[in-house]
Amino acid sequence: MSQKKICVVITARPSYSRIKTALTAIKNHPKLELQLVIAGSALLGRYGNAVNFIENDGFIISEKVFMVLEGENPSSMAKTTGLGVMELANVFYNLKPDAVITIADRFETIATSIAASYQNIPLIHIQGGEVTGNIDEKVRHANTKLADLHFVASEEAKKRVLKMGENPKMVFNTGCPSIDLAKKIKLNPKLDFKPIEKYGGVGEQINWEKGYLVVMQHPVTTEYNSARKDVLQTLEAIHELDIPTFWFWPNVDAGSDGTSNGIRYFRETKKPQNIHFFKNMEPKDFLKLLINSKCLIGNSSVGVRECSYLGVPTVNIGSRQNKRQRGSNIIDVEYDKTEIINAIQNRLNAKDIVSESIYGDGNSGNKIADILATTDFTFHKTIEY
Amino acid sequence: MSQKKICVVITARPSYSRIKTALTAIKNHPKLELQLVIAGSALLGRYGNAVNFIENDGFIISEKVFMVLEGENPSSMAKTTGLGVMELANVFYNLKPDAVITIADRFETIATSIAASYQNIPLIHIQGGEVTGNIDEKVRHANTKLADLHFVASEEAKKRVLKMGENPKMVFNTGCPSIDLAKKIKLNPKLDFKPIEKYGGVGEQINWEKGYLVVMQHPVTTEYNSARKDVLQTLEAIHELDIPTFWFWPNVDAGSDGTSNGIRYFRETKKPQNIHFFKNMEPKDFLKLLINSKCLIGNSSVGVRECSYLGVPTVNIGSRQNKRQRGSNIIDVEYDKTEIINAIQNRLNAKDIVSESIYGDGNSGNKIADILATTDFTFHKTIEY
Amino acid sequence: MSQKKICVVITARPSYSRIKTALTAIKNHPKLELQLVIAGSALLGRYGNAVNFIENDGFIISEKVFMVLEGENPSSMAKTTGLGVMELANVFYNLKPDAVITIADRFETIATSIAASYQNIPLIHIQGGEVTGNIDEKVRHANTKLADLHFVASEEAKKRVLKMGENPKMVFNTGCPSIDLAKKIKLNPKLDFKPIEKYGGVGEQINWEKGYLVVMQHPVTTEYNSARKDVLQTLEAIHELDIPTFWFWPNVDAGSDGTSNGIRYFRETKKPQNIHFFKNMEPKDFLKLLINSKCLIGNSSVGVRECSYLGVPTVNIGSRQNKRQRGSNIIDVEYDKTEIINAIQNRLNAKDIVSESIYGDGNSGNKIADILATTDFTFHKTIEY
Amino acid sequence: MSQKKICVVITARPSYSRIKTALTAIKNHPKLELQLVIAGSALLGRYGNAVNFIENDGFIISEKVFMVLEGENPSSMAKTTGLGVMELANVFYNLKPDAVITIADRFETIATSIAASYQNIPLIHIQGGEVTGNIDEKVRHANTKLADLHFVASEEAKKRVLKMGENPKMVFNTGCPSIDLAKKIKLNPKLDFKPIEKYGGVGEQINWEKGYLVVMQHPVTTEYNSARKDVLQTLEAIHELDIPTFWFWPNVDAGSDGTSNGIRYFRETKKPQNIHFFKNMEPKDFLKLLINSKCLIGNSSVGVRECSYLGVPTVNIGSRQNKRQRGSNIIDVEYDKTEIINAIQNRLNAKDIVSESIYGDGNSGNKIADILATTDFTFHKTIEY
Repeated sequence: MSQKKICVVITARPSYSRIKTALTAIKNHPKLELQLVIAGSALLGRYGNAVNFIENDGFIISEKVFMVLEGENPSSMAKTTGLGVMELANVFYNLKPDAVITIADRFETIATSIAASYQNIPLIHIQGGEVTGNIDEKVRHANTKLADLHFVASEEAKKRVLKMGENPKMVFNTGCPSIDLAKKIKLNPKLDFKPIEKYGGVGEQINWEKGYLVVMQHPVTTEYNSARKDVLQTLEAIHELDIPTFWFWPNVDAGSDGTSNGIRYFRETKKPQNIHFFKNMEPKDFLKLLINSKCLIGNSSVGVRECSYLGVPTVNIGSRQNKRQRGSNIIDVEYDKTEIINAIQNRLNAKDIVSESIYGDGNSGNKIADILATTDFTFHKTIEY
Repeated sequence: MSQKKICVVITARPSYSRIKTALTAIKNHPKLELQLVIAGSALLGRYGNAVNFIENDGFIISEKVFMVLEGENPSSMAKTTGLGVMELANVFYNLKPDAVITIADRFETIATSIAASYQNIPLIHIQGGEVTGNIDEKVRHANTKLADLHFVASEEAKKRVLKMGENPKMVFNTGCPSIDLAKKIKLNPKLDFKPIEKYGGVGEQINWEKGYLVVMQHPVTTEYNSARKDVLQTLEAIHELDIPTFWFWPNVDAGSDGTSNGIRYFRETKKPQNIHFFKNMEPKDFLKLLINSKCLIGNSSVGVRECSYLGVPTVNIGSRQNKRQRGSNIIDVEYDKTEIINAIQNRLNAKDIVSESIYGDGNSGNKIADILATTDFTFHKTIEY
Repeated sequence: MSQKKICVVITARPSYSRIKTALTAIKNHPKLELQLVIAGSALLGRYGNAVNFIENDGFIISEKVFMVLEGENPSSMAKTTGLGVMELANVFYNLKPDAVITIADRFETIATSIAASYQNIPLIHIQGGEVTGNIDEKVRHANTKLADLHFVASEEAKKRVLKMGENPKMVFNTGCPSIDLAKKIKLNPKLDFKPIEKYGGVGEQINWEKGYLVVMQHPVTTEYNSARKDVLQTLEAIHELDIPTFWFWPNVDAGSDGTSNGIRYFRETKKPQNIHFFKNMEPKDFLKLLINSKCLIGNSSVGVRECSYLGVPTVNIGSRQNKRQRGSNIIDVEYDKTEIINAIQNRLNAKDIVSESIYGDGNSGNKIADILATTDFTFHKTIEY
Repeated sequence: MSQKKICVVITARPSYSRIKTALTAIKNHPKLELQLVIAGSALLGRYGNAVNFIENDGFIISEKVFMVLEGENPSSMAKTTGLGVMELANVFYNLKPDAVITIADRFETIATSIAASYQNIPLIHIQGGEVTGNIDEKVRHANTKLADLHFVASEEAKKRVLKMGENPKMVFNTGCPSIDLAKKIKLNPKLDFKPIEKYGGVGEQINWEKGYLVVMQHPVTTEYNSARKDVLQTLEAIHELDIPTFWFWPNVDAGSDGTSNGIRYFRETKKPQNIHFFKNMEPKDFLKLLINSKCLIGNSSVGVRECSYLGVPTVNIGSRQNKRQRGSNIIDVEYDKTEIINAIQNRLNAKDIVSESIYGDGNSGNKIADILATTDFTFHKTIEY
């Protein structure tokens, strides 16, 4: 019996964690064949080369696509996307998949959508229907309108995708595969490795055993110029609190140089003794770090998704997560040192944070593989109204 | 007082007629400055170089962008789009417009949308909210989700754009500027030029004075392989009817070689005596040709829009116009010689075809310019629900 | 024992005939593995899709690369080349060849050279050291300076490559593989097929059995605007002579639209009764057509190479072949109807045209494969003086 | 009287210093108009944004071209070049220069050469005919073969360009414009600014007033993997010598991450107290820093050119400068800590280092402008033999 070829394009390190259990389920499903394409910043050491993790996890990479332009302005985001369309068009032409999966809403994910849909290859979008606050918001909904089949992560998201005019037979709330990983960690939450010894990084040899914070703050692209100023508020807050902190460098984005610059400047001038910086970490180690932390600070979607499921207190800064459905673990604040400090202290004293299953029950990967195996793909679509 | 710079990107010959009166209104408005970019097939002689018409109409072209890849398969459509994103990103970076206008739904229009929105330039989409039947359908709605301001052409279209979650304050039913041209022609419909003498073309010196048909049939990209077969049905129908006919070559598209090939093959083998072929025509001459014709045959949106307003009987073939709102002038048929012949004969005998204003009352260009002058542009957008 | 992987990039129909016997020899050599990449106009039906011929000859194509931009000006040549560099960089990255072969001097061949040499892959150039008259002249010598190993086609060419500072140990006069094909045809020259029945084409059903001419005229890119005027001189000469003629359409080049346009215009207006037009022909059939013809007219390098070996009278028009080493079969003329007519008549009466082995003795393919198998490749090179 | 438009493309910070006095001379010449294009890494803050320096010097930039791809392997060099061809083709199409100048031999300079020559724009190459040791060697000579007019920097270089078959009337030894700047500094060598106060940078506040070293070491691209290892030899040598040192970060190149990585690793682990790091410096300040230094160490061409003229002792490491003509100021060593230490000590004690005019007498800029004004440009070229 011939297998359906499912091509998944991963363009950034965090997308890998979001999709990993679905990759495993596709790879192991008797009716499916996995074609894995690694592209964009997922290939670049500067942002934490995801390729090593992926290969260590036993996946075979079908094609690698270098497509990221350097530059300090949003033009390079547009050009990276255009280049991605051209390169991925070639890749799909040669791999001849039965369907292509594009993940979420990073700016370059629309390159996957265009390269597939223009070549009449059924397009599957994962994690549509959410609401956030920058160019991702536009990209996510445009991906929805280019896609033929939708795997969404929450009930609210499903309603939104249907309201946009998609065919109800092609929209499935599978939850988010990232929660599958979180489920395993929750069952076995022990921090069984030494972060600095295992991952190196730069900065002080902090004394984290008695409790620590985790920070992950990305630039918000439509507020490009303020990325540097924004991150300095968080740096000052963390510096002043003087609690041991693990800080993760931002993804590639226009403005990442702004954020990275701010961090480098702060390190050189203030030499903070309580912060250790990592480029990245294996997903399961990262989740262990989170579940054992006192609080996550920043604007990562990890705060909204995994931390809601894991019950990790979270201070969410700025507009990046916007209207994404939230659990009780979160406090929202502005880019303001004082607000950030107060919110962290509030979270450190919170008693009532419970685990919630807004983004799935921990079985998303298998659900996705089963639907892929049993659904007839199509690339003909008309709006429902 | 400083003027708002409005950058309009025209990527194909037919888009020019659709937008022309709006260009004039923008150019003449004291608060607006027009930046005109001509790109893609609008630059290529093979598809009827639109540049000459545009310059003869008194417009100054700010930049020309060559971006069309040759090729007989949908890959070249994807690559053309990717290249367009890269090139237009540069163009907008240098022109620094206050807003960019992308027109309708051709595959490469999304390049304009991405290049503008990713650089935080407010994006205006013209003619969203309609429903058709191929990749254009996906592209149109994706353009809607990337755009910040919408000028739609009918009430149905407006309702659809709002249902997709756009901000009601940013959606305007201005009608279609193409109807502005049609209005002028309707007031003065005399065919005051000799088509063959003025436009050359190839094929027989047909005797059109006592009545003629017009054919305009484009390939439907998601049915790429059948483009040649489809056009042969129409060619045989027209050949058998033996009524003098003006036939227009198709636009550039994957498959245009299929359609063009079919036409060339038919000419060589059947040497039809009743057909004369044109590459293209000035918009106003084309409308005069239409209003004086017995019937339009094919799958052009001109049959749905202008011909509804002008009251020209139309035989619409296949799925390309899909659910677009239609007037009483239209009969829909399949790609089938017999059906086409019967429908043409029906239309030639129809008595009750009246002019309808579904796509505007002939004042769209000015409406668009006025809204551009008075609306505050933004590039921050969140879905309404 | 591991085989050396030799990647050959073919970007145009005529390059295939030039390299075919070397491809066979590489494929059959126990120490070599052939990786065949088909790119550019070799993929386009409009210029005679070479892919079918190649696959019918039993070669497996490793990768197809669409890269030709449409357009009527030299910008599209530059952009096609740039796109080729980007695409081929990917191809070589994935195929990981031990050496890459770039053929001759078409404008896009430098894309192969850059994509290989910049990635530290040893580059082999075939047919360097010749002298012609347009952008090809610059491209050929630039290819020489990027290449590490050289297979040239004549003694004059070898001397020139050495004078340019290449390492004598890396320059081999193997002759031109196109002569290998010619040798077979010369041994068995019978015209054993009916050209029009086998290849279709357009134009009259000419009466060629009692003798015919062959025309092959390409645009000269640095004289882009005059391509149309130039070809009309030849068309008028052939028309006036009224000898049955097989005419081949030009390759893709800036200006091909000029040449093609001229041909189409002439056909529509003069309806020449003595000319039949072909897009292309299998190499061996083409050589049979040539060896049985009365004269070749145009500016193809076939006149200089194969026709010299085959002893076919040739009228070479214009500067395109420039200082390329010539046999006694050739007369050179300007783009001038009268000169062309006189030269054809001179050639029809010539008695003394003999076969010459300037470009090889018919064993080039095997020589090339043997050298590839026994030479150590390197990508480190320094000019000799 | 109409001026000749001379378009100069600068793709990297060091190219600006090499050409600056020629830019001024072109700008001020009554018969010439300067069109300045800034592209590639010259636009990127990470490598020292050259744009600010250029605009502060009073030049107007006609166009900025983002074209650098991120990546840790030579593929990104190839792709950057391909993208450059596409982008620059557009730029030249719109600027319509009478001639284009490409500078020296960085990998992406061939993009300028192709984009100009393929569009029949006369191409001028500056600094051909030299001999070095990596991909630059191939690129430089390929540039020569694409160019129509040559401004070389030494007599040896002139002889080499002529030997390659260029027209003697089109080859001029003007010397190197970088020596024009050096001449001014030599007349007024006082170090009249405080380096760390003015340029920031990172690392220790070293005590440089009593003498210091300068280091500038770039990765050698065909030895990509060893870039990190190589730079560590130099770092260890400098660390052990414990002399105050100003160290400049490398240019963008495949492998720059190797070099940069090595530097970052060394800083984190060894915390060298005697090194201060700069990204870049205004050219005249850099020359003042050099002329007052005890020794330049590394593999920059500055050691060969400016330091020979200024009489600055230089330790040249590795193969990068290869056979470039050298003065008595230089000692060549391998990538070996001990060799480097010994060579620096030798240079610190050398008594006999004199100024030499191998690369010009300090009037190159004016010579170049005068030749541009009086030479008839052409894009037709044939090899001389």
